[in-house]
Amino acid sequence: MKSRTIFFVSDRTAITAETLGNSLLTQFEGVERERHVIPFIDTESRAESVKERINNSYTVSEGRPLVFSTFTDDKLRKIVSESDCIFYDLFNDYISRMEADLSQESSHEVGKSHGLVDKGSYESRIRAVNYALEYDDGARLDRYDQAEVILVGVSRTGKTPTSLFLALQYGIYTANFPITDSDLDNYSIPRPIKPHKKKLFGLTISAEQLSRIREERRPGSPYASLRTCQREVSQVEELFHSENIPFLNVTSISIEEIAAQIRLTRDLDAKHY
Amino acid sequence: MKSRTIFFVSDRTAITAETLGNSLLTQFEGVERERHVIPFIDTESRAESVKERINNSYTVSEGRPLVFSTFTDDKLRKIVSESDCIFYDLFNDYISRMEADLSQESSHEVGKSHGLVDKGSYESRIRAVNYALEYDDGARLDRYDQAEVILVGVSRTGKTPTSLFLALQYGIYTANFPITDSDLDNYSIPRPIKPHKKKLFGLTISAEQLSRIREERRPGSPYASLRTCQREVSQVEELFHSENIPFLNVTSISIEEIAAQIRLTRDLDAKHY
Repeated sequence: MKSRTIFFVSDRTAITAETLGNSLLTQFEGVERERHVIPFIDTESRAESVKERINNSYTVSEGRPLVFSTFTDDKLRKIVSESDCIFYDLFNDYISRMEADLSQESSHEVGKSHGLVDKGSYESRIRAVNYALEYDDGARLDRYDQAEVILVGVSRTGKTPTSLFLALQYGIYTANFPITDSDLDNYSIPRPIKPHKKKLFGLTISAEQLSRIREERRPGSPYASLRTCQREVSQVEELFHSENIPFLNVTSISIEEIAAQIRLTRDLDAKHY
Repeated sequence: MKSRTIFFVSDRTAITAETLGNSLLTQFEGVERERHVIPFIDTESRAESVKERINNSYTVSEGRPLVFSTFTDDKLRKIVSESDCIFYDLFNDYISRMEADLSQESSHEVGKSHGLVDKGSYESRIRAVNYALEYDDGARLDRYDQAEVILVGVSRTGKTPTSLFLALQYGIYTANFPITDSDLDNYSIPRPIKPHKKKLFGLTISAEQLSRIREERRPGSPYASLRTCQREVSQVEELFHSENIPFLNVTSISIEEIAAQIRLTRDLDAKHY
């Protein structure tokens, strides 16, 4: 088996090529030697220089490079595809099938994906990010009616990154609120978010990992001790159960998976594409 | 031409299906009626119920639904593909081609993409987000040596969302620092980030759009006036030119495009996949 240089090439951001190419590569261990993301190849001279770069990366010992591309322009795609590589154009393959299946010609317009389709959706996304920042970690006590989802959990369970991801990626108005010791002792939902119980989503985590994360922040503190973490995790899960708050253990999953699960549970659609 | 219901289905997050499916759909105007993202279809009974849901969405007037899927499990894919739809499996089509091209069998492992491949990469990503939050808007005056890129620009040019996107999406340590009036008057780089000039990347925007964005924040203020915005934008662009700071006008592009351009210019690779 040869390890190869991988290229993700596009006339736009190359995000689609990178996303699907990465997914596919996870199924083939040991194939990857190094990788290059090459966006904005939108002229013939740029395409020619990518072709040269791909050819230069082809060595006898390493084998033919793998190229994942998403060109909308036929001429540019042709230039790059003629380099000495294994070439997958993730876009074109489907465009022709879809044209036949839908009996409709494609527009062949560049940059419609991951581009600024309309200003409204861009700005609503920025607004969602600003909202997530303003409503991070229980910073506000009012206006939770604007939230589409409110993440709850004890300290350091990933509430902030998850909120930002939902806001940035999907334009979803996401607040987050900490569950503190006094909430745990009373097995009660914090007062400011109680009226919005239908929007709550809980995050929990293994006590061991929580302790390790907290140790980084305050080494040797009672806050970070395994014992504290065990108590808090078991109490907060009991609270989620008794109040019927849907929740997710995030110990061994990615932010993408957490976000997908929250969108599914709370039926939250993306605001832009 | 018929508008159709679109489904993105997967045994994992469906992010790959959604990303590529969206890109493809931008090339076919008027096709989409409504869309459903359906992640975590990892049992036969779930697959059966998706099949039923797809069949129910097929009406004579609207036409056959479009399904974009990325199943790794053959049995589950088969169930969903047998619904009354136009079916594209973005994963399987390429897996077989890659197996042939690479003379290597795929692992057929579920959830390797967008899953928690290793804890190290997950935590480095969270650390990058924490760094971006801590180093937002010039909040710190020290330790910029940790930054991989420092975004600079006048107020409200998208520095914060872009920083968070680079950190969340790619694990890139991103700080951002505002260019203030006194910097503009002296045509100088703010002192705390001057030693890190090689890491700077400027964001600029049209004066009209900047004024509109600032109006939302402080209506009727001198800060938001078109005149102030025109002066600031022209001064900051002059500063970027004279100091040889690479910069980008973000007026009509998406966060994805801004991030791709910054990664390209500053040669920043993603930290995880």
